[in-house]
Amino acid sequence: MNFGYFDDAAKEYVITTPDTPLPWINYLGSQDFFSLISNTSGGYSFYKDAKLLRITRYRYNSIPLDSNGKYYYIHDGNEIWNPATMPSQTPLDAYECRHGMGYSKFHGAKNGLEADVLAFVPVDAACEINKVTLKNTSSGTKTFSLFSYVEFCLWNAVDDMTNFQRNLSIGEVEIEGSTIYHKTEYRERRNHYSFFTVNADIDGFDTSRDAFLGAGKSNAFPEAVKENKARNSVASGWYPIASHQINVTLAAGEEKELIFVLGYCENPDDQKWEAPNVINKAPAHEMIARFQTSEQVADAFAKLNQYWDELLSRFHVESNDPHVNRMANIWNQYQCMVTFNLSRSASYYESGTGRGMGFRDSCQDLLGFVHLIPDRARERILDIAATQFEDGSAYHQYQPLTKKGNLDIGSGFNDDPLWLIAAVSAYLKETGDFSILDEMVPFDNQEDKAQPLYEHLNRSFTYINTHLGPHKLPLIGRADWNDCLNLNCFSKEPGESFQTTGPSEGPVAESVFIAGMFVKYGKEFAEISRIHGNADKAAEAEKAVDEMYQTVLDAGWDGEWFLRAYDAESRKVGSHECEEGKIFIEPQGFCVIAGIGVKEGLAEKALDSVKKYLDTKYGIMILQPAYTRYYLNLGEISSYPPGYKENAGIFCHNNPWVSIAETVIGRGNRAFEIYKKTCPSYIENISEIHRTEPYVYSQMIAGADAVFHGEAKNSWLTGTAAWTFWNLSQAILGVQPSYQGLCIDPCIPEGFGDFSLTRQYRGATYHVDVKNPDNVQKGVKKIVVDGKEYEGCCIPAEEGKTEYHVTVYMG
Amino acid sequence: MNFGYFDDAAKEYVITTPDTPLPWINYLGSQDFFSLISNTSGGYSFYKDAKLLRITRYRYNSIPLDSNGKYYYIHDGNEIWNPATMPSQTPLDAYECRHGMGYSKFHGAKNGLEADVLAFVPVDAACEINKVTLKNTSSGTKTFSLFSYVEFCLWNAVDDMTNFQRNLSIGEVEIEGSTIYHKTEYRERRNHYSFFTVNADIDGFDTSRDAFLGAGKSNAFPEAVKENKARNSVASGWYPIASHQINVTLAAGEEKELIFVLGYCENPDDQKWEAPNVINKAPAHEMIARFQTSEQVADAFAKLNQYWDELLSRFHVESNDPHVNRMANIWNQYQCMVTFNLSRSASYYESGTGRGMGFRDSCQDLLGFVHLIPDRARERILDIAATQFEDGSAYHQYQPLTKKGNLDIGSGFNDDPLWLIAAVSAYLKETGDFSILDEMVPFDNQEDKAQPLYEHLNRSFTYINTHLGPHKLPLIGRADWNDCLNLNCFSKEPGESFQTTGPSEGPVAESVFIAGMFVKYGKEFAEISRIHGNADKAAEAEKAVDEMYQTVLDAGWDGEWFLRAYDAESRKVGSHECEEGKIFIEPQGFCVIAGIGVKEGLAEKALDSVKKYLDTKYGIMILQPAYTRYYLNLGEISSYPPGYKENAGIFCHNNPWVSIAETVIGRGNRAFEIYKKTCPSYIENISEIHRTEPYVYSQMIAGADAVFHGEAKNSWLTGTAAWTFWNLSQAILGVQPSYQGLCIDPCIPEGFGDFSLTRQYRGATYHVDVKNPDNVQKGVKKIVVDGKEYEGCCIPAEEGKTEYHVTVYMG
Repeated sequence: MNFGYFDDAAKEYVITTPDTPLPWINYLGSQDFFSLISNTSGGYSFYKDAKLLRITRYRYNSIPLDSNGKYYYIHDGNEIWNPATMPSQTPLDAYECRHGMGYSKFHGAKNGLEADVLAFVPVDAACEINKVTLKNTSSGTKTFSLFSYVEFCLWNAVDDMTNFQRNLSIGEVEIEGSTIYHKTEYRERRNHYSFFTVNADIDGFDTSRDAFLGAGKSNAFPEAVKENKARNSVASGWYPIASHQINVTLAAGEEKELIFVLGYCENPDDQKWEAPNVINKAPAHEMIARFQTSEQVADAFAKLNQYWDELLSRFHVESNDPHVNRMANIWNQYQCMVTFNLSRSASYYESGTGRGMGFRDSCQDLLGFVHLIPDRARERILDIAATQFEDGSAYHQYQPLTKKGNLDIGSGFNDDPLWLIAAVSAYLKETGDFSILDEMVPFDNQEDKAQPLYEHLNRSFTYINTHLGPHKLPLIGRADWNDCLNLNCFSKEPGESFQTTGPSEGPVAESVFIAGMFVKYGKEFAEISRIHGNADKAAEAEKAVDEMYQTVLDAGWDGEWFLRAYDAESRKVGSHECEEGKIFIEPQGFCVIAGIGVKEGLAEKALDSVKKYLDTKYGIMILQPAYTRYYLNLGEISSYPPGYKENAGIFCHNNPWVSIAETVIGRGNRAFEIYKKTCPSYIENISEIHRTEPYVYSQMIAGADAVFHGEAKNSWLTGTAAWTFWNLSQAILGVQPSYQGLCIDPCIPEGFGDFSLTRQYRGATYHVDVKNPDNVQKGVKKIVVDGKEYEGCCIPAEEGKTEYHVTVYMG
Repeated sequence: MNFGYFDDAAKEYVITTPDTPLPWINYLGSQDFFSLISNTSGGYSFYKDAKLLRITRYRYNSIPLDSNGKYYYIHDGNEIWNPATMPSQTPLDAYECRHGMGYSKFHGAKNGLEADVLAFVPVDAACEINKVTLKNTSSGTKTFSLFSYVEFCLWNAVDDMTNFQRNLSIGEVEIEGSTIYHKTEYRERRNHYSFFTVNADIDGFDTSRDAFLGAGKSNAFPEAVKENKARNSVASGWYPIASHQINVTLAAGEEKELIFVLGYCENPDDQKWEAPNVINKAPAHEMIARFQTSEQVADAFAKLNQYWDELLSRFHVESNDPHVNRMANIWNQYQCMVTFNLSRSASYYESGTGRGMGFRDSCQDLLGFVHLIPDRARERILDIAATQFEDGSAYHQYQPLTKKGNLDIGSGFNDDPLWLIAAVSAYLKETGDFSILDEMVPFDNQEDKAQPLYEHLNRSFTYINTHLGPHKLPLIGRADWNDCLNLNCFSKEPGESFQTTGPSEGPVAESVFIAGMFVKYGKEFAEISRIHGNADKAAEAEKAVDEMYQTVLDAGWDGEWFLRAYDAESRKVGSHECEEGKIFIEPQGFCVIAGIGVKEGLAEKALDSVKKYLDTKYGIMILQPAYTRYYLNLGEISSYPPGYKENAGIFCHNNPWVSIAETVIGRGNRAFEIYKKTCPSYIENISEIHRTEPYVYSQMIAGADAVFHGEAKNSWLTGTAAWTFWNLSQAILGVQPSYQGLCIDPCIPEGFGDFSLTRQYRGATYHVDVKNPDNVQKGVKKIVVDGKEYEGCCIPAEEGKTEYHVTVYMG
């Protein structure tokens, strides 16, 4: 069942009912000010850090779900309604929500009155703009009232929801004209405030939630709205809000536009006040002046559109498959940018209060956005690398504001170091900027321990290579990519971290997955070393990689598939010998990506086993059979009910690994089949089963063992975005940056047909036509670049050339 | 304005409208299972620890406020309503809530149907019982449906409201007959579950919140209720609930009783399962069997009533003032027991997720409950003392489950040690059990560092006496009783703890308040030492006390009142020389309680200054003038808006100190005037201003500088309970346990008249009549004990005597 449709021309998803299976959201913001916004205008805003500088208050797990947001109430005659239906839930004559690139639009209509809201965060201002357009489509004059409503968070989102004995006494506001300032704690140590304003005279205001709603009342029909009479309340403690009342009269056909701005301002410590207890409003005045007129807002919106058009133009494909085009050109790249901006901090499943930036997460996310914002990717790499320890291991997480490693969680996730090589490799291939390898980067954020970035890669590589277990496979530590496979931890107490408990004395558990990564990224390290002029290191690395390759064949092969690991007592994990958890997805994908077992025929066998044992119509499960009880020696993975999350859920993140692996052995049909199963656009029509947004990936879909097989969770902030884009763009469509230049080597399903694409790459534009006259799944016969024919699939780069016209002939 | 009335005979407060200014709550539970329950049946339950073992889910700061609880929906004809009005908020024909001693009763009626709910926690079972009685008062037959509803918390209340990416996948239930079991995480490391059952066959059930309410819908009118059709949903992840549907037909006048039980059970690790993935229900079956019939429930309720009757009988007064009788005999003692049970953990202002047991809090609370439960007070003292450090300082907080000190907050609150002397002194005076002094008690919970409790007192005393500042006054450390007066901390960053930042190098700030405490409790320590056979130590202590007395006169007197402190640069705090914060309440109260300046005439002067500068019609403010800006050298106290909390709010906790101080100098009129201002019963009729419950004390009432002067906050869990009871029982009514026995020395207002009281004390019952023929405020001419006349006010104890009849003649 569909609850909307894609408008590809507008780069929008159009939601046609407020009754989506779950709130379907969008993200506004591209620099420091961010908003989450749902299809019924739920959500919240924050500045830089969703925990520490939460601007508006959201109630996770509220009833109704998603019942705080930025609301506009219309009191027209006997009816009270909202353009996006919440929170009154009054049925409308017309409803539409359009989630676009960095903006959302709402259209509501009732009884001859139309209300449109355009919400966006300008590219160059710390505010959210809500342009509200009211139109009288009836044949007579209409007089009605509009009430705005936002509820302020007292900045620290955790404190805000726990420390009531203090917080209910500290709320403070100021009102100046049509602007309501929220200044809680500004009197003491904060140097920032927020404001909510409208570019019109107001007929009243409220800043006390109780005064506006009525004490003990819901926000569905505030008493002030019901009585058409703002209370002009001045909040003192309790729950500060900002609400404007604007009385409107519109002649038949007449239209009125109002611009609301929710802004965030900081002042230098010595300029906090303009008078005792009166905040310095200069920065607010300046910001408000920038968005006073329709023209100003139109300009700001045009700039935002331009920002996204430019970003997305860096990769653009035209194929016969509209799903592919839509995901590649719009939504998959868009989601990659959201993961760049938000990491795993704030979604409708991540409360914005916990996790910092993940070392592994951020490195993987980079694979999806490096082609869009290479400069910011460079910064990100240096930030991440600076949290590495001298021995090559890494903090598993770091704080976005301080960029320091998170000591609570610490180190010991032994795949982490290799992801740094993955990220740097992707950056080098995209940009050719090898100067980054010479950047001096601290260890553990201590400047006196700085070494060139190249040395960080060397430490990463060496760490893995010097931490091998009894089978010469890499030690897994607290966990590898699968945070929930905790082979050395043995947690028994409720509430303990599954990861940071233990490890036991002599943790010897080994990971075949890390072995696959080592082969894959060890080769990259060798190649980088050679280019960087370190042939000895390259040779040494290649030797280690070759040894690991053989080790995987010797100790990591189970007969029909690759083993997953050895536990702390050297018992096999992910083997036919196991009672449950006989086969895992991760090593099948990553070992084949690394090329292991391809020439031996094991790769094909492993991938066939994936299909045979792990595949479902909704995607490939992470393992089978599901664990039906808790295993102390396996940890969190067995804590989930069967079919959910890491316990045999369909983890969307590693489905593309298998798809990519299929392209490694040339099976385009199967690669594409896998791609389609979890691809949002393809499964839009089962939204009643899938439930999450049909325009972005979710982290997980319930597996075959689950009660609700096919139901997705944890949409938006997932490494799935990057890996599916990598799979589609590089493995399937075959657009592969290399250290030397751009290569085109597609692996597509039969019947996919010809396609063309445009790619910005190292300062030049590549116009590529792919011809597949023989309908092959893989193989490039020749390429023609600006009339010249070449063998192989790589396009020779020419100094100073800014346009390449390329035709690729498969066959 | 009143929103209800006291029913003293029933020991109940009767609330006659659901529209109280704020939720007015009660506490159920006396051992391990506790529930908070509001007058509209909001609230939640937990087992032992409100953070770690939260049984039902509550949403703090919800809209509507207080919108989760234990709900019963009645679908009768076209109406859906709730006996306690929430969450449907359907207006009823009749509504009443009675909060009693450990139980709450609700009565709702609509359209000829009455629904009564009795909610209580038995004294000897880990469950809450809800007895629901339905009565058809119409003239015809009625057929309707009853739906129950509780929402489960996934145990850890903090994780439950933050970790959605995991939690939405783990919810699990089992259904067996009429019992719904909540077993989330039982599959892994938990060995406990909860259940919700009813003693009747059911016509359907729900365990999925979305299925019951409808996705995205509020809980006001669940779709299952609207359609009169439970979905028989089995929760898998998301939001597990328990709801029963029971279809009822009642003839005219007929009545039906249903018993719902919400229980908590634990199993030994080796008996967790009765079959794979089927929980061992034996303990639940056993508990359910105990509360199946009306008789069983009536018995359990009678036991509860008996429990409270016995407790409250330990102190009972009959005076001409019904407010005094009611507060002394019922509500003030009841609140003291609640602070014993809950400390500061879970109220409608304390989210149950943060603070452990306070060292100072718990010692002070003990002053209010030691006469009620001396055995448990003994245990509590030993627990508290075990968290003391060897040098006599103390962890400021400790964890209730582990009883270990809280390292995050640590030590350095320099009044803490003296509160241990206060608590032990109160215990000794109550019980005469000097054996406690010889109990071996660890330091910092390390058994190998155990010393007799007496030595702990010695270390407490010595710590203060060896940590003196430039004026020889006690060093204040991070703060003294006023946690917000942070003279050594200098916090500049938002979100930093005001207390644990710093202290600066060489923290020399001094506290006159601690000096007062030292004189007061130093004397107690000396007396205890002497009785304990350590005359040398007693003499030494008395000498130190005398010196401190003189020091306060020399360095702690400001001319009209006692100084509050010296800051880190030895500048005065709470002096006429200050621009703001010229006078503070704490030293005026405590120095006079300690007797300082009484003979010099300074005590009277100080208390007159309190009246002149700090008094308001709603109580005495903590300081004046309020701080209008943040002072880095004063800390959190100046972070609050003027009039709130420690910044010139009326802190109810220390109003009784001034009242007690007035009794020290014999001014009964003024003492009682102060008592009345904050006493709930006296101000019931300004509930629209006071807003919190009129049957219990709140921590704070907004001061004269506040916008809402007179508005209270943070009801229930406050040291105010203990100190007001101490003030009323010991200072005003004059019932004073001493080391030697019971003394009676009232200090009452003119016109108070004669009064009588009963007091359980050291195994005997004292029947006391106080006669005041001359209408004096203070002074006992003689006492007559069982016909024998004595001088002084102390009743000679006789070995083995269990009844004393005492007449006290004032004059």
